Amino acid sequence: TRTIKLAVVAGDGIGPEVVAEGLKVLDVALAGSDVRVERTPFDLGAARWHRTGETLTDEDLAAIREHDAILLGAIGDPTVPSGVLERGLLLKLRFALDHYVNLRPSTLYPGVPTPLADPGDVDFVVVREGTEGPYVGNGGAIRVGTPHEVANEVSVNTAFGVERVVRDAFARAQARPRKKLTLVHKHNVLVHAGHLWRRTVEAVGAEFPDVAVDYLHVDAATIFLVTNPARFDVIVTDNLFGDILTDLAAAISGGIGLAASGNINPDRTTPSMFEPVHGSAPDIAGQGKADPTATVLSVALMLEHLGLTDEARRISDAVAADIAERDGTARSTSAVGDALAAGVADRVPA
Amino acid sequence: TRTIKLAVVAGDGIGPEVVAEGLKVLDVALAGSDVRVERTPFDLGAARWHRTGETLTDEDLAAIREHDAILLGAIGDPTVPSGVLERGLLLKLRFALDHYVNLRPSTLYPGVPTPLADPGDVDFVVVREGTEGPYVGNGGAIRVGTPHEVANEVSVNTAFGVERVVRDAFARAQARPRKKLTLVHKHNVLVHAGHLWRRTVEAVGAEFPDVAVDYLHVDAATIFLVTNPARFDVIVTDNLFGDILTDLAAAISGGIGLAASGNINPDRTTPSMFEPVHGSAPDIAGQGKADPTATVLSVALMLEHLGLTDEARRISDAVAADIAERDGTARSTSAVGDALAAGVADRVPA
Ligand SMILES: CC(C)[C@H](C(=O)O)[C@@H](O)C(=O)O
Ligand SMILES: CC(C)[C@H](C(=O)O)[C@@H](O)C(=O)O
Repeated sequence: TRTIKLAVVAGDGIGPEVVAEGLKVLDVALAGSDVRVERTPFDLGAARWHRTGETLTDEDLAAIREHDAILLGAIGDPTVPSGVLERGLLLKLRFALDHYVNLRPSTLYPGVPTPLADPGDVDFVVVREGTEGPYVGNGGAIRVGTPHEVANEVSVNTAFGVERVVRDAFARAQARPRKKLTLVHKHNVLVHAGHLWRRTVEAVGAEFPDVAVDYLHVDAATIFLVTNPARFDVIVTDNLFGDILTDLAAAISGGIGLAASGNINPDRTTPSMFEPVHGSAPDIAGQGKADPTATVLSVALMLEHLGLTDEARRISDAVAADIAERDGTARSTSAVGDALAAGVADRVPA
Repeated sequence: TRTIKLAVVAGDGIGPEVVAEGLKVLDVALAGSDVRVERTPFDLGAARWHRTGETLTDEDLAAIREHDAILLGAIGDPTVPSGVLERGLLLKLRFALDHYVNLRPSTLYPGVPTPLADPGDVDFVVVREGTEGPYVGNGGAIRVGTPHEVANEVSVNTAFGVERVVRDAFARAQARPRKKLTLVHKHNVLVHAGHLWRRTVEAVGAEFPDVAVDYLHVDAATIFLVTNPARFDVIVTDNLFGDILTDLAAAISGGIGLAASGNINPDRTTPSMFEPVHGSAPDIAGQGKADPTATVLSVALMLEHLGLTDEARRISDAVAADIAERDGTARSTSAVGDALAAGVADRVPA
């Protein structure tokens, strides 16, 4: 029997609701297998901060490190000053656990509504750098609140950091049928960071001669995402551009309710973290209205990362089948979870 | 007789082709009026750089300053290292002439193809800050080309710079029927810059009590641009977010061939600069394939800025009428220019 130690960070807003469904499906996916999951819930997020003033202590982090993976719901709440939980908890986890590959696949399942009139075949994955760029928190301000305030934000990009994520993206592109990698940046303006990314893609690309490479400025990339998303196979980009592109990618491929992600440390020296791309959606929290599909698909990404590919496939197949039958009728969070769990159960060999 | 001194920077790629049509329409729009245009062409861009190594000299800039407005085609060429012309010429003009309002309207004209299945009423304007943010050129790199390279880019945001553009955006929102302003930023991550923007919008908003204000993170804004663009009236945002959002906005409202922009100094201490949002498109340059409509609409923005509102309206009406009749048949750059000029001529009172 293999035991997977899973840290569960349900978090804020709709986080607990969608995570409950993710775990429900996970249990079904592993039922009858020789894999068992040992879950540890972590009380992190707005409630904890209000109670204790803490976001993520050294002890929390040390305890989380003892796990094989993390399932996270959503972080962020309007009652907490903007940035406190995002920087102090969500991004702290990504940075401290060195999740340098933020993996965000976009597939438009048949039958799924999209705002695009003629989307074509949408099936790409964004490899978003997760530990550098404008997300490093190296900003500051002087004379705050006066007419002479200056507020700076620094994007930090290192050869070490860029090379490892670019290498990962090339490997993913090589493993896909189309073998195509698109670097997205803005090197005509952000010349120093941009040229580092560009040179790195060129250098690492020499090791992957069968992968076709192209480049788009981030502004142009948004155009293609709505006019010809089928042109994309693997996109590699920095932390902020990746944040923006993946929300847009989610919007065109069925909406943020379906977008899964993995914050991955490919070196496996720390637990990787799986979470829906959507946020805590406080406006609908606690009402059973949230779509748990993105969390369920994140569970599939997690199983894949853990080497449980058959189990992962059963989940994504069940999701695809369920989605194909959706007709716009509203279902509760748990009803969707039940349906997906049933679909997985149907696919588990007796 | 009023004389308008117009600096013409045709630039690279398709720039000269589209500018020729813009000037053609401009002439027709002013024919029979008491306004005459005195044009000075400026030889700036890739050809000049190859010949002399210069991008924009102090003398060029001093000469340009003597004008009432600038019409610019496009800057950028694959034969010049990335960033040289963009930073050394285009952005240098925007920064040196303190074009702090980069005005980019998005209107989906009736009959215009859009990638969206159900776009609704698209009619908004992005007020993109033009002189700060990650565009300031305050980046640098150490150990370039080694495994220890670190490349930084600094986004600089000042109370002075943010307040003036936010004030301009509020005034524009107040002058529009819907009176709605959306701030787009990413204040949960870029906390210092983001909070400066947020506080500024709150403070300036007190002077515009009839303007409704909301806020979106930049990632969420891209979602709404494809799922519900009709929700936007005026967007105010920073230089980089504005760059990204306006390409996406162009894509959903008829494509980059229709997107006009003004780099405006509302204080009128320097000439403002009008240019299509599209780039130099070297792949189709010299073939008479470029759509000059965005440049023609930029001429309309210019006339409006110069107080020639009737003349401006005639151009945008002629464009709307021409667009409504487009059926996808390819027309040459000059054929489109001729048609638009004829449409304007029809609208000029005898
Ligand atoms: C909540 C926020 C900090 C986060 C990000 O910007 O990375 C979110 O938008 C995401 O994409 O996971
Ligand atoms: C060419 C480039 C420097 C420019 C920008 O980023 O501002 C362009 O994309 C634009 O939007 O006008």
